[in-house]
Amino acid sequence: MIEFEKNHRPLILVTNDDGVDAGGISVLTEVAKEFGNVVVVAPDAAQSGMSNAITVKVPLTLKKVSEDHGLFVYKTNGTPVDCVKLAFNALLPRKPDLILSGINHGSNSSSSVHYSGTLGGAREGAVNEVLSIGFSLLDYRHDARFDAAKPFVRQIINQVIQNKLPDYTFLNVNIPKGNSLKGIKVCRQARGRWVEEFVEREDPRKQKYYWLTGFFQNLEPNSEDTDEYVLKNNFVSVVPCRVDITNHEAIDQLKDQSYEMVAKVIL
Amino acid sequence: MIEFEKNHRPLILVTNDDGVDAGGISVLTEVAKEFGNVVVVAPDAAQSGMSNAITVKVPLTLKKVSEDHGLFVYKTNGTPVDCVKLAFNALLPRKPDLILSGINHGSNSSSSVHYSGTLGGAREGAVNEVLSIGFSLLDYRHDARFDAAKPFVRQIINQVIQNKLPDYTFLNVNIPKGNSLKGIKVCRQARGRWVEEFVEREDPRKQKYYWLTGFFQNLEPNSEDTDEYVLKNNFVSVVPCRVDITNHEAIDQLKDQSYEMVAKVIL
Repeated sequence: MIEFEKNHRPLILVTNDDGVDAGGISVLTEVAKEFGNVVVVAPDAAQSGMSNAITVKVPLTLKKVSEDHGLFVYKTNGTPVDCVKLAFNALLPRKPDLILSGINHGSNSSSSVHYSGTLGGAREGAVNEVLSIGFSLLDYRHDARFDAAKPFVRQIINQVIQNKLPDYTFLNVNIPKGNSLKGIKVCRQARGRWVEEFVEREDPRKQKYYWLTGFFQNLEPNSEDTDEYVLKNNFVSVVPCRVDITNHEAIDQLKDQSYEMVAKVIL
Repeated sequence: MIEFEKNHRPLILVTNDDGVDAGGISVLTEVAKEFGNVVVVAPDAAQSGMSNAITVKVPLTLKKVSEDHGLFVYKTNGTPVDCVKLAFNALLPRKPDLILSGINHGSNSSSSVHYSGTLGGAREGAVNEVLSIGFSLLDYRHDARFDAAKPFVRQIINQVIQNKLPDYTFLNVNIPKGNSLKGIKVCRQARGRWVEEFVEREDPRKQKYYWLTGFFQNLEPNSEDTDEYVLKNNFVSVVPCRVDITNHEAIDQLKDQSYEMVAKVIL
């Protein structure tokens, strides 16, 4: 277990899905250090698109990368969710006060929240009732400018520390690229999906294989209260996301549809 | 693309996360055939705990396993979500009428809905606005009796085909083991989490590694409207699950907390 000098600073866990060496996690760690003692546990290589996956087939490694003035950095062969689980169980002296995941290299708005490893890390924090935020930057350039996101990341972390978050809820924060952002908007997940187009190839033994590709389709481009709309208008989007995904309103509706037959009718 | 004889039967896609050879998908396919023309696309090996993960680092294979009287079976090296995407884009002549995922070998109740590859497959169907159901059997024996679940699987598929499902919603169905089930209950996701205990080992080069293990903790054991309670009382649990995970009630609350600063205040 890691031991910190006795102080009253918050304990902050930082993770991501682009890997421990990515530019985004370096910037996120810098901002995190302004707020507390920081432990980084991140994948040793990119784990993009890993969602809430956990590693069950192979054992997990956990190696210290560095330790410097209250900043501990570890890497593992696991997913972002594994990173959070390992930190909780093998490293941290107590439950952290805050989990930050990202800054992802690319958008995680709309239904991408479901595929994102970055958001998987944040969701795992919220399952464990820790304040959790996933950050993503809509800058797809190889040398994406994560620095530009700093003031917004700082502002949102500050809000979460001050006001906490609604019960069983984490934040999905997406940040447009550039230096001319207009501000921050709280909004909802747009209805949208990836329209896949697989690229078909043939290997030397004449077997077909497929590369996943495709483009995002916003199914409600005119709704002004969605993350997609807000981002298009150069605001940072903040979507509060639930851990409890039950459609509570649907329960009575389904009960009325004679789902609840007793076994003697069914068997 | 697959071509079926012209008929008016529903087109049903079946997938899972335990792999194409698992006992659960065989039973699910048998029931599915009672309702329509069936295409199976499943992982070539177990993809447990893969959640909503997609495969981006390696190309996907897609191989026909068998074709027999309106039943087409394919396998891929991808995740359950990849299976659905491949079926949509490389195999099916049109959007299917129904997606069935499972029957998983083990429970996917409570927060396990987030880690489950079985539910990942069902969620991917719902993102694409197809009626989708994930089935899981709470029988951990090597020779689990999936057969016993058949009448309940049939009943729930029948309900979904008759009444459709609420918008942007899929079903998480868990089935206790055995032959003395009392019936079906529509319920909500229990608040709960996995309390991890990693088993620590050392490799021949003295490097530590960890196997993920642990046990499930139901944080509200006395709530009678949860899936955990219903299952414990020997009923099949049916939880309607949202694709839109926005905590809509939290939006106004966060707006009141001055999240929505304009850039000139932040920068």
